Formats: sequence, C-alpha cells, structure tokens
Amino acid sequence: MNPSVIREILKVTEKPGILSFAGGLPSPRTFPIEAFAAACATVLHTDGRAALQYAASEGYAPLREWVAADLGRQSALAGLPWHIDPAQVLITTGSQQALDLIAKILIDKDSKVLVETPTYLGALQAFTPMEPVFASVASDAEGIDVDDLSAKAAGARFLYVLPNFQNPTGHSMSEARRAALSAAAARLGVPIVEDNPYGDLWFDALPPPTLTARNPDGCIYMGSFSKTLAPGLRLGFLVAPKSIYSKLLQAKQAADLHTPSFNQRIVAEVLKDGFIERHVPTIRALYKSQRDAMLAALSREMPADVTWNTPDGGMFLWARLPEGMNAVALLPRAVEKNVAFVPGAAFYADNADPRCLRLSFVTASVEQINIGVAALAEAIRESRPILAGNEPATVEAA
Amino acid sequence: MNPSVIREILKVTEKPGILSFAGGLPSPRTFPIEAFAAACATVLHTDGRAALQYAASEGYAPLREWVAADLGRQSALAGLPWHIDPAQVLITTGSQQALDLIAKILIDKDSKVLVETPTYLGALQAFTPMEPVFASVASDAEGIDVDDLSAKAAGARFLYVLPNFQNPTGHSMSEARRAALSAAAARLGVPIVEDNPYGDLWFDALPPPTLTARNPDGCIYMGSFSKTLAPGLRLGFLVAPKSIYSKLLQAKQAADLHTPSFNQRIVAEVLKDGFIERHVPTIRALYKSQRDAMLAALSREMPADVTWNTPDGGMFLWARLPEGMNAVALLPRAVEKNVAFVPGAAFYADNADPRCLRLSFVTASVEQINIGVAALAEAIRESRPILAGNEPATVEAA
Repeated sequence: MNPSVIREILKVTEKPGILSFAGGLPSPRTFPIEAFAAACATVLHTDGRAALQYAASEGYAPLREWVAADLGRQSALAGLPWHIDPAQVLITTGSQQALDLIAKILIDKDSKVLVETPTYLGALQAFTPMEPVFASVASDAEGIDVDDLSAKAAGARFLYVLPNFQNPTGHSMSEARRAALSAAAARLGVPIVEDNPYGDLWFDALPPPTLTARNPDGCIYMGSFSKTLAPGLRLGFLVAPKSIYSKLLQAKQAADLHTPSFNQRIVAEVLKDGFIERHVPTIRALYKSQRDAMLAALSREMPADVTWNTPDGGMFLWARLPEGMNAVALLPRAVEKNVAFVPGAAFYADNADPRCLRLSFVTASVEQINIGVAALAEAIRESRPILAGNEPATVEAA
Repeated sequence: MNPSVIREILKVTEKPGILSFAGGLPSPRTFPIEAFAAACATVLHTDGRAALQYAASEGYAPLREWVAADLGRQSALAGLPWHIDPAQVLITTGSQQALDLIAKILIDKDSKVLVETPTYLGALQAFTPMEPVFASVASDAEGIDVDDLSAKAAGARFLYVLPNFQNPTGHSMSEARRAALSAAAARLGVPIVEDNPYGDLWFDALPPPTLTARNPDGCIYMGSFSKTLAPGLRLGFLVAPKSIYSKLLQAKQAADLHTPSFNQRIVAEVLKDGFIERHVPTIRALYKSQRDAMLAALSREMPADVTWNTPDGGMFLWARLPEGMNAVALLPRAVEKNVAFVPGAAFYADNADPRCLRLSFVTASVEQINIGVAALAEAIRESRPILAGNEPATVEAA
C-alpha cells in the first residue's frame, strides 16, 4: 500500500458532506484566530521588514528560547529536570520536516531503521527517499517490546517512536516501559528519535517524562505547534545533541533555507504572556468530550466483535474489525454511507494487520460523530463475509 | 569549501555596522508591508479556519491558477505562447525546496548532474544529500557552452541552469544561446531544470522566452515570490510535466506535508487585481539605480586590473581580482574595513576560480554602496601580493 494509493483513497474522503474520521485534522474550532490576527498586525507594524526578510536557518531566537524553556518547564512538571540550551533547538517547517532532515543525516541506502508496529505513515514516507530497510519492532498497548528491540537492534541507525497518544493507535507508553526502553536503547547504542506532536493533548494526567529527558545525548526530540496552535502555519521544532546539530542545520539550509520568518514571529508573539497555558486546556476539554462521544457511539452502535481502545489523549483511536474482514475493502462501502477512516494497513512498514482502522475523534463534532459511527457500523454489518451468518446485523448485535 | 565553512565566513558578515554586499537579500524597502497587513486581516476574517488548517500538498488552488496564468502571460509578452495547466503547478516552501524535491526524484547515488560554471551554491547544497557526481559545463557571459554540454551529456540525469541574471554571476543567456541549448538538450535527451527567481527583475528589456516554454515536456521550471514580494514567507513554485508531477508531489508531501496554507492565502490575496504589475516596476527601478551606483563606484574606486560585468537585471554582479589574489584571503581584510562579499569559490562544483567574488547591489543603499566599494578597493590595494610593487595603491591607481 504505497503513498499514492493512500492519497487516492483519501481523495474519496473529500467528497462534500462526508463525515471524516480519516484525516488527522485538528478541530478548527480550536484555532486562535483573533490572537493570530492581532499578532500579524503587531509583527508587521513593529518588525515588518525583518519578518519578511530571509533569516537564519536555525530559526527565530525568541521562539527557540520559548521552546527550550517550555520543554524544560513541562519536564520538571512531569518530575524530571531537563535543561535545554536554545542552541540545541532547530525550528522546522512542521515536524514533518524534522523527519526529512533526520533521514538525510542518519540514513544511507539499506540502513536499518527501527519503527513501532504500527507507526506514523508520514515518517515512513519521509524516510523512504533515503532507501532504508525498515524493521518493525513488536509493540503493544504499553509501547515498544524491549526484548524484540534487543533482538533487532544490531546495526540500526535509530529507533523512531511516538510515546504519547501515538499516531495511529492512540496508545501511550507506560512509565515502566519508558524506563526500560531508555535503558535498553542506551545499552544497545541505538539512538532514539522521539516524536511528540500530541504530548500536550492529555485528558486526565500529564504523561510520564519524555525519553529524551532521560538521555538527552542519545535522542533527537521532535515537537510541533500544529496541534496546540494551528497546522496551517507549518511550525515544528527539534532538539538535538550538540554533536549532530550542525549536520541537521546544514540539511535544513539545503531543504528550504529557513522556516518562514513571518510565521515564526507571529507564533512567538502569540506565545507571549503564557497564552499556551490558557489555550491548551480548552483543546484538551474539547477533545476529551469528543473522545467520550466516540467511545459511547462505538459501544452503542458497533457489532460485538469490533474492538477498540480508550486513548488517554491525542486525536486517534484504533479499532479492529471482526475476523475475516479487511479495512481497505470496507472503506468504499463506508464512503457510500458518507463516513471515512484510514485503513490501518497504511501504518505498517511490513506485515500489516488488515483488520485495523484509525478513527480521528477531533475533526468531527459530537453530532457528526454520532451519525458517522452509526453509518460505519452499518457498513461493517453489510460488509461482513456471508460465512459469518445469513443475518449478520442481527447476529452481531446480539 | 564546504557549506559550513561558508556559513562561518558569512557569520563574520553579520557584525554590527558592516556594509554587506554578501547576502542575496532583497531590499526590505521593497516589501509591501501594508498590502500584507491588509491581506492577513482579510484572510483571517473571511477564511481563517481554512487558512490555519492542514491543506493539500499541491498548494492552494487560486495561487496555482495565478502562477499558471502569469507565466503564460509573461511568455506571450516575450513572444512565445506557453500554456500551463494549473495541475502542473506545485507550490513549494521557497524555490529552494523545489531543488530538494527534484534531487529526491531524479538523483541516485553517483548520478551525473550537469551544472553551469559557476552555479547557485544552494542548488549544490540541495542536490548533495542524494550524492550525485557534479559535472561543470563550461559557461561564458552568454550562458552554457553547448559544445561542452554535448561532450558531457552522456548519462546525465539533468542540467541545472539559471538563464536570467544568474546567481552568482548576474549573466543572462542570449536568445541564440537559449535556442541552441534547448535544441541540444532535446537532441541529447537531457532534461533541463530551469531556475528563474530573478526573471522579473529586468532593468531595460524583458528577457527572451524561457527554456521551458520552448520544450515544456523536457523541462522543470522553478519560480519564486521571494524577489517580487518577500522572502520571509518562503513561497516558491515549480511547473513540471504531468509525467513526473505525481512523484514530485509525493516527495513534497513527505518533506513538509504542504507549504503553509496561511502564507499561500495571504499572497493570493495580495496578488489580486494586478498588484504585481504595479509593484514589480518599483523594484526594477530601485535595483537599477543601485546597480548603476555600484558600477559607478567600482569605476571610480577599483584598481585598473579589477574587472566586473554589467548585469541587465537581478541582484548580483561578478568581479575578478588581479592575478595572484584570492577572494577567500581578501574577505577578512575587507571585513576589518566593514565591508563583506561572498568569495566566488563557493559557487563552483569543482575547479573554482579563486579570484572571483559576488557582489549584491540590492541590499545596501546607494550611500552604503559608495562607502563599501571604496573600503573594498582599499582592502584590495592593501592585500595585493608584494611582488606587484612596493607601493601597490599608487601603482594600481595609475
């Protein structure tokens, strides 16, 4: 299932009137439009020429300082001090670009790259131009299987991992697993690339400390403003050990010279005076209510042999169809009923589970979630293999 | 002379009070700040949620349509019809990113890539991660030497060329040379990557038609809003044959998902109602006056055996030091006198000419140009090899 096949599938989901659980689109209700409008006016009025000029590839200094301070603050709240020098922060054009830069400096043709099972599709796409060989490390609801990591670690360039509210599964790595993974990676000499776009979107409790805070010299950390402010500005960042920062910077310069200086200044302006600490709780509350609505709708509507998890934050939930069913085959039937999702097969480097699917609970409203989940359940009932019974809807609803 | 050496050299040029002819920075006096402020307010007010959301990797449809129409209009003015389907336009995060995407889809390790002598440093940097072998094609003031191209074309993946007001030399390719090059490339089966960031900045006459308009199926065209509106928004574009568009799109999606939707909408808003046709002539007039000032200052101040060209547009002028001198060695002496430039050696894939240097005439004001050129001439006189005479300043001024 290659990227263009997925793009074609997802194009179907753009049809008017469709209820989409497919895209990883933040709810536009959370975008602080007024704050951006005020920041644009201020930046252009006070600093317009610099904001519109070429700028340093590293990024805008006040924004790098904010990132370093904010990560340090959050790590302290989670119980683990992490001192970051702003000189270790590189501003990227969305965190997707961080994946591209990391690929360029760490992957050669046929390099082994370790990934979770399943993992973020966009990472597989970003790494692929450098022609790595992916090795999928077994993973469960608590995260990476450390024994399987040890078995597969030899010669690996790095392990790519999303410990918080993972894309696609919504799983979070437990404290015990993080501790074990961090120790094992250090022992095995495997660098960790820690991707954390969803870490701020916890619903009830702050996640355990990051992997990077446990071993800053052995990790590259990636973050994003796409989920806490808005994705349309394309602003992300990475924090790298000083030993490899200059190589990442060189790759950044070659990739797009620098991330838009205007966008960096707008966001730095919006972030002044603790804005994020007032704003993000409103996103958490909204997304938690939408998660709850989706869980309730799934319980109400789905056949008994469809399963799913309960994410503690983030944007996604991971469901599994009954035996014998295939999520790719289900999609067109669902789209006929005006509901869309992403087949889970898209997120595996190899040996995909054809029964899984990713559902986003953040883009659609509660009302849309209720309608969409009912339609999806109907599509599942109608698509069941005949072998499962002549009256599948009735049988399964029992 | 690798990129990090250049970055270190150029850091010196950031010292306060320095007169810089080094960077390729457009004059901030040309940035339409008021138009951007109005566009930000309009876009956020009327279309804020879409402007801040994730968007299609291809780019914002109205902007793609504008690019297709504008290139067609300009080509017609230059005397050659060129019909572009907006579906062939890919919006990029600055035209630097177009180089990165092209490298990813056209270059494998050890692929031969043909470049001008000298050529744009940023292109060499963008291509390098894919590990090509560069072949420098001999070039003169009229452009690429077509015979040398024929001799070196075998097996080449593409030829990278800047026909208008080239970076670094300021040279423009003549109509005769364009016709010969286009025919030769088609005959040899060598695709052309045509980079045209400066084409709108002509001083007295519209340049001859582009290479791409002569053979659209054999070329990828790259353009930019950095020189006509502002670089800090990072907005560029490419036009590709339909046969390879989907591969470029896939690389674009993997690189940063899409170019900031907000920036694309702002620029589409600014471009309404013929803004560019009113705005760009003011840039041309300013840059022409600054070129004239630099030419006059060079004539007035420089030793007789320093040479330079007279660019018909763009941002750069190419100068050459007297025999035995070296521009890299000159730079620290110039910086001591508060003037900076880029040593020409940075722009050669191989066999650099150590005597050349690139001077930008667009960033500094006329007053600064006069002071800076005098200081540079003084640094040259003081740095001449002793062999050239005991009283070099006097001898050379003769």
